[in-house]
Amino acid sequence: EIVAAVDAALADGPLKGKHVLVTSGPTHEPIDPVRYIANRSSGAQGTAIAKALVARGAHVTFVTGPADVPPPHGVDVVSIQTAQEMLTAVQAALPADAAVFAAAVADWRVESASDSKIKKSGKKLPTIAFAENPDILATVSQLKTGRPALVVGFAAETDDVIAHATAKRERKGCDWILANDVSPETGIMGGAENAVTLISADKAEPWPRMGKDAVAARLADLIAETLATSAKGRAAT
Amino acid sequence: EIVAAVDAALADGPLKGKHVLVTSGPTHEPIDPVRYIANRSSGAQGTAIAKALVARGAHVTFVTGPADVPPPHGVDVVSIQTAQEMLTAVQAALPADAAVFAAAVADWRVESASDSKIKKSGKKLPTIAFAENPDILATVSQLKTGRPALVVGFAAETDDVIAHATAKRERKGCDWILANDVSPETGIMGGAENAVTLISADKAEPWPRMGKDAVAARLADLIAETLATSAKGRAAT
Repeated sequence: EIVAAVDAALADGPLKGKHVLVTSGPTHEPIDPVRYIANRSSGAQGTAIAKALVARGAHVTFVTGPADVPPPHGVDVVSIQTAQEMLTAVQAALPADAAVFAAAVADWRVESASDSKIKKSGKKLPTIAFAENPDILATVSQLKTGRPALVVGFAAETDDVIAHATAKRERKGCDWILANDVSPETGIMGGAENAVTLISADKAEPWPRMGKDAVAARLADLIAETLATSAKGRAAT
Repeated sequence: EIVAAVDAALADGPLKGKHVLVTSGPTHEPIDPVRYIANRSSGAQGTAIAKALVARGAHVTFVTGPADVPPPHGVDVVSIQTAQEMLTAVQAALPADAAVFAAAVADWRVESASDSKIKKSGKKLPTIAFAENPDILATVSQLKTGRPALVVGFAAETDDVIAHATAKRERKGCDWILANDVSPETGIMGGAENAVTLISADKAEPWPRMGKDAVAARLADLIAETLATSAKGRAAT
């Protein structure tokens, strides 16, 4: 709490007065009370981004699944388990000036999770039917009213990274996609570094491989610049 | 390392000279490079048991999946992800005087995990075929040669706890089962306390609800007594 107070006191930066929503970590989709499906995500990149935004003066709402790393100081933490809970928390946190969707949300949930532990019965294997989870990034990107001025998504891909991420940006309707290659051989998943490409309406800009804190700092600076420009734009009209 | 050295120096207890194998944490079964199926397990109970065994002088091999809590000091840590890797690590760690299988091993794995990220394609949902994982507890319990003198399993159940766990003990061939009720309403899963029933060949003994450290201490004392008795038995024949 002392650290948070110091952060807040120091945080007289370019994002002062701005509310930024950040999602982080994986979601856990229950199969039964003891089993679940998840996406790999330590929450490290989302946490670093939230921290960088706070350091620049933003008020950050941090909606997080069960991550490996603790949430940063100085944010409003909303803890959730499933994609559906994350969507509800995100909608409750709006309006926001910007939103960064760094969580690794499960695309699918188990259609009817069992209330009791599924038993092994002889050699019969369970069959699991899936249902599609809500698309949080698309939902917020396509809001008719109350859309954040800047919506940033992530694309964790294993092949054709730029092509997949560029198509994802258009399909979802967000402003930027930070795309990265999470093939096991890159060592990025679970590691301290990240190698991202920033995809916007007019370009795909590869950033050098750097620490997740450095990626966060660069992104937070870009968000601050962009919000300042769009505010000036609005003031001029 | 200083703590571990102090632990080792202090650990001139009833389990001195004994090798105990402990498994802990969940296993993660990959669906593709970014998605996996897991059992809920913080690793807290297995870690507490390993710590209690070390404190009583045991040499502990600690085979752990991706747990929330760090492994205890003074053990030999073997980190694994999947049930198949856990079985291999367990077999490599034998012989042992006793084995405590506290890990929450996934019963099933995905039959053919994808090497690349499964994409959402239109409205089509993926179908996942499962294969049965090796049964580590049964495999070790039923070893013809080199079976540990004492094999302890866990049963995390949500209904008919004692009946299910008693049947499990007989089916697997282990000596003891520590059974607990992990229904969400008990608050045990992920919490600091546990309420177990020790099931052996001749009784089901409910232990009062207590901290996971206290459960670990009581179990470690029982293991020490039992190994001392069986050693005396062998010496007498």
